[in-house]
Amino acid sequence: MNIREEKAYQLLRANTEKYLTLKDEEFDYYFSLLQYKIFPKKSFLLRQGEVCDFEGYIIEGGVAGIHENGEGNQTVVSLMMDDWWVTDIGGWVREEPSYLTFQAMLETSMLLIDRERKEQLYRELPVFERLFRMMGQIKIGAQQRRLVNCLSLTGGELYHQLIAQYPLIEQKFPQYLIASYLGISPEFLSKIRRNMTK
Amino acid sequence: MNIREEKAYQLLRANTEKYLTLKDEEFDYYFSLLQYKIFPKKSFLLRQGEVCDFEGYIIEGGVAGIHENGEGNQTVVSLMMDDWWVTDIGGWVREEPSYLTFQAMLETSMLLIDRERKEQLYRELPVFERLFRMMGQIKIGAQQRRLVNCLSLTGGELYHQLIAQYPLIEQKFPQYLIASYLGISPEFLSKIRRNMTK
Repeated sequence: MNIREEKAYQLLRANTEKYLTLKDEEFDYYFSLLQYKIFPKKSFLLRQGEVCDFEGYIIEGGVAGIHENGEGNQTVVSLMMDDWWVTDIGGWVREEPSYLTFQAMLETSMLLIDRERKEQLYRELPVFERLFRMMGQIKIGAQQRRLVNCLSLTGGELYHQLIAQYPLIEQKFPQYLIASYLGISPEFLSKIRRNMTK
Repeated sequence: MNIREEKAYQLLRANTEKYLTLKDEEFDYYFSLLQYKIFPKKSFLLRQGEVCDFEGYIIEGGVAGIHENGEGNQTVVSLMMDDWWVTDIGGWVREEPSYLTFQAMLETSMLLIDRERKEQLYRELPVFERLFRMMGQIKIGAQQRRLVNCLSLTGGELYHQLIAQYPLIEQKFPQYLIASYLGISPEFLSKIRRNMTK
């Protein structure tokens, strides 16, 4: 392995160990099925309406998940950074068109796996069914908390919580994307930030 | 099996077959681990702050998932009906206190499984890792769509979409819960409904 692959290996292994302990040969087989790829800034991983054929793990970078409605209005649904997974998981399972566009907002290095290899992994090593079952369940809990926050907190509270949880997010993404993610206007976000620095 | 168990068996089997096909003996073993229980109207399945020790399948009824913030304000996060799963899944996996209270809003019959039996199921029949991995991934997709809608649709649009998707929801839950679920005031919901009937 070269240096960048070695780093990717270590990061993904640590991510995996949060859920369960794998044998070296299990993890190595998994890693051998992944493809290392760099997405340039502003490039698209997936466009809304396409069927997602990958699960991707971000080694370093930033990806925005954006939904566009019938009138052309865009909503930022997710902002994903180092050590996050990117996929349109519902669409992946059902082979349905994606509800979201995924765009790299800065140069982003990833490990990717396609549907065929993922099924091969599950077939060869069923422990990965357990791993991804657990990862999915943690994700559902996190999404539920986000939904609670969206429904119950003010824009200012959402912003404070976001930067407490992800201190690097403002270095990764421009303000207008963060504002959209929080469901507030860029002007209101500027106002919140000005009030903070006072 | 008595009649109500027979009905529960059929419903859960159909729910399961949406994801994958199980052998009779696999499903029967699973079913043997489930406990049938009726929750009276207004009773609590789980209170916020407790650690969730069950996954529950609603045969018939209605359960609200409610979050209360530090100031005592309540937000309805989920409204669950026949053929839905109820659990604080993130808390279940991590054994952390629940973010939500689950309350039966009308008499609700359920099938429940506790942590120990669920782990026994995964151990004995790993195909259930696959089943719940797939169910979780579909759930993540559905939650993501809900989040998109919350961020991008007006209260009126959310209401129309809700009753199109769940025509029975207004028979199951009182208006003030539906209003909270949509993130609008009960008065605004009344106004939307009056405009519809005109």
